[in-house]
Order: sequence, then C-alpha cells, then structure tokens
Amino acid sequence: MEKLIFISNDDGYSAEGIKQLAEMVRGYGDVFIVAPDSGRSGAGMSISSHNPVRNTFICHEDGTEEKGSLTVWACTGTPDDCAKMAFEKLLPRRPDLVLGGINHGDNCAVNAHYSGTMSIALEGCIKHVPSIAFSSGKTACDADFSYMREVVQKVVKMVLKEGLPIGVCLNVNVPDTNELKGLKICKMGMGDWHEEWQERDHPRGGKYYWIAGYYAPHDENDHESDTWAYEHGYVAVTPIQLDMTAYTAMEQLKKGLE
Amino acid sequence: MEKLIFISNDDGYSAEGIKQLAEMVRGYGDVFIVAPDSGRSGAGMSISSHNPVRNTFICHEDGTEEKGSLTVWACTGTPDDCAKMAFEKLLPRRPDLVLGGINHGDNCAVNAHYSGTMSIALEGCIKHVPSIAFSSGKTACDADFSYMREVVQKVVKMVLKEGLPIGVCLNVNVPDTNELKGLKICKMGMGDWHEEWQERDHPRGGKYYWIAGYYAPHDENDHESDTWAYEHGYVAVTPIQLDMTAYTAMEQLKKGLE
Repeated sequence: MEKLIFISNDDGYSAEGIKQLAEMVRGYGDVFIVAPDSGRSGAGMSISSHNPVRNTFICHEDGTEEKGSLTVWACTGTPDDCAKMAFEKLLPRRPDLVLGGINHGDNCAVNAHYSGTMSIALEGCIKHVPSIAFSSGKTACDADFSYMREVVQKVVKMVLKEGLPIGVCLNVNVPDTNELKGLKICKMGMGDWHEEWQERDHPRGGKYYWIAGYYAPHDENDHESDTWAYEHGYVAVTPIQLDMTAYTAMEQLKKGLE
Repeated sequence: MEKLIFISNDDGYSAEGIKQLAEMVRGYGDVFIVAPDSGRSGAGMSISSHNPVRNTFICHEDGTEEKGSLTVWACTGTPDDCAKMAFEKLLPRRPDLVLGGINHGDNCAVNAHYSGTMSIALEGCIKHVPSIAFSSGKTACDADFSYMREVVQKVVKMVLKEGLPIGVCLNVNVPDTNELKGLKICKMGMGDWHEEWQERDHPRGGKYYWIAGYYAPHDENDHESDTWAYEHGYVAVTPIQLDMTAYTAMEQLKKGLE
C-alpha cells in the first residue's frame, strides 16, 4: 500500500503554500488534505469548543505511476480541528506522515506557540505519527515556493525512512533567499513582541485594535537558536516536543510548595 | 506601591472562576482583569489575526485597608489577546504576577496545549512576569471554588515572594474533592482523545460536528504525571516551560539531516 501523507495548514486549503507542498511530496505517496476553508493565521492549538464544524469535499485526483493521489477537503474549523477531523472522520487509513504548511511567513522561535501550522504537527505528535511543520519567509499570496522543494523532499524522505521519536515533531523554517546555506538543527529562540496593537477609530465611536507589532529576539547572538539560523540564511530545523514540563524547576518548587 | 496582579481566563470576565480568584488574591495587591467577553474554551495560544479587537470597561472598586482595588475590562479577543492588550494598553503599570483562571474544568496533561487559561500564563512567561494558571475539576457555571482558596493563596504567596525562573510558569490543577491530599509537583501527562467528533444532521442537509470525546492517558500508572496526581486527589502543580525544544532529539537529527 502507498504511504499516506496528511497535510493541513493555517492559510486555508486554497493557499499556494499547501498546494505546492502537496505537489512536492506526491512522489512519496497519496496526499490527503483537510485544511481550513479560509485563513486562520495565529490559531495556535485552538479547537472549536463553541461552534460546530462542517466539512466540504473539494476535489480528488487519482494517482499515476509517478505520483500518489490527491484528495482535498475544506473544514470550517481551526487548523487543529482539521487534523482531528481528518484522523477520525475523513482519512481512509492512519497516515504515515503529517505535514503542516507551507506557511506563508516564518514560525521561528516562541512564535511557534501562536502558529496554526505548528498545531498540525503537534496534533500529529499527540497521535504518534511523525509530523513536520514547514514555514517560509515568503508571505505573498502568489508566492513561488519551488526554491524550497529540495529541502522539503530531503526532510520528508528522512522522516519517512527514520521516523521521529514519539512526542517529537519538527518545525522547519526556510528563509526567503535563493542562497540557502543548508540545514541547521536548532533550538527554539526566545523573544517578545512590541507595539502589539494598532489603534484605529471606529466609525461609530470608540477604538478598535489590530494585532501587529514587531518581534524582538532576546537571543540575537545565540548561534544555536532558530532565529539566528533563519536570519543568517540557514534552513532552521527545530525539534519540538509535546512535553512542556520544566524539569529543571521541579526541585526548587518542591522545596517551596510540597 | 501595592503589588499589581493581572488576571484573565478563557471562560469570560463574568465567570465565577475568575471572580472568585480575584477575591482570593485581593489581599495581596491590586487586581486588574482583562478577560474575554464570553467563553473561549479551547482557545490555546490563538491570537486574533483576522479580526479587530475591542475593549469594554466593566467596573472598578477602590481598594481598602484589607484588600487591593479591582478593575475589570472585557475584550472581544482571545485569552492571549487579553493578555497582550492588558500589557500594552490597559494595565496602569507592569504587573508583578499574571494569573489565568480559575478555569471551570481541569487542564491536566497535554490538554494544557489547548487551554486558553494556560495561554495567559505562557504569555506572562513570554513577558518575563511570574505566571500561574489555576484550573478546577468543578465545571458548573455556579461552581463554588472556595474549597481551593488555601491552595491558591499558598501558591500565589510563594510565587510573589520567590518568583519563578524566567521562561517557566505553573499549571495548577485542583481536583473536585473536599479532601485534597496536598500539593504535588508533577510532569505533564501524555495521552490522546478518542471519539472526538459528535455527528449531527443539519436541518438543511449534510452533517455538522461538535468536538467532544474522552481523554485517555498513556501514563495511567506514572505517579509523576499531573494526570495521576489529579486523579488521586492531589493538587497537581506542573512547571511548564516556554522552550519546547526537544534537546534529546538533536544529535540524531544532526546525523540524519545536517
């Protein structure tokens, strides 16, 4: 049986990033997409607790000798809903690989926490399927991601062959340059956002706010961080784990609280 | 100057959990609430990328000799938006402590990833302020959380006095029992959800789905997990870190990819 690759994203099923990612990996098996019906940037691991969710079948192409089949569904829910929906209701069998992306815009550093694309990989991780989130420095709606085909195929091939440890997925960030310096295994960068809200006047009085601002890394000179690698032309590959326990803080807390 | 305690949640500013939490900690300083205008369960770290956000002033009470002032704002955004809005636009000064909760329902184990209450603590952590998420096994709208007052006050007092390491916050889960066995420092439990979607017939044709199901721990017998502690009557205190890097997977990945 062909390998089955499940893909979702947070830019919506019709985004260039997910379409181009699907074509990059169809050589490795059948591709099944369940993705939001429109953009859901910044959705994090959110799930639709307060609203019901519906699915719409978009298209199916049979496989050929060179490439696997392609099936596409749109879902009214969050990116994480899409993954949960795919696993329980839509996928024909358990997938061999879960991919998020290609995200239009990077998800380096702590920003992975806000990312719907990353949530796809984390949900795959919860379900014990090797999972990878791909993000690009290109943000345009009509972006051409072909410059990262080799990177995507290299990482996907490795993960399909070797797997990943249970509870670990990958966050892959590819800067927008035609002179990629190669892959670098990194740690999650630390930093914070500034001027996060743009204030506007509402036509009927009062203020409203758009989230915006700029990200300022706290570890600009730390060559191990994904931010540094990404800013210096490397493909930043950050292994991310589900287990967020701060093991190093446990002893101190035991003294203070137990 | 009085200590300033910022509180938010994902059940909304009018939920019993946040109201009762505010009263439990007013003895330690001024309390400032910016919370969603209605329920946002399962919001994770989501931010409102696609919609603008508005704020509504709800009320203010001056402080007395015994307790600090109380200020409440409602926000149309996600829990994490509330934290970002508070820090940049609403708080009178940088807070000394960030609290999420009291959540109506627990946020043990990997479910912390889906939790809007936890996102408050993680955002506080990003902003280098000591942060704690409190959740209870009680889920009723009119729940009485007074049984956990001592626990809340003990943890808050310790954190106000000792602080927490940068990048580390606390996830505190209090089971619904009047015979709490004490505090236990735990690690994040692992597990997965099953039967995640309840299917219904739409009145105009087709299906729609509500997220539901049951959580099945993978580590039922691991006495170090927060799930075990919580299920056995302990207050589960899990230190959570922002940095999700899977350091143990880095060497293997370097061999495979670099």
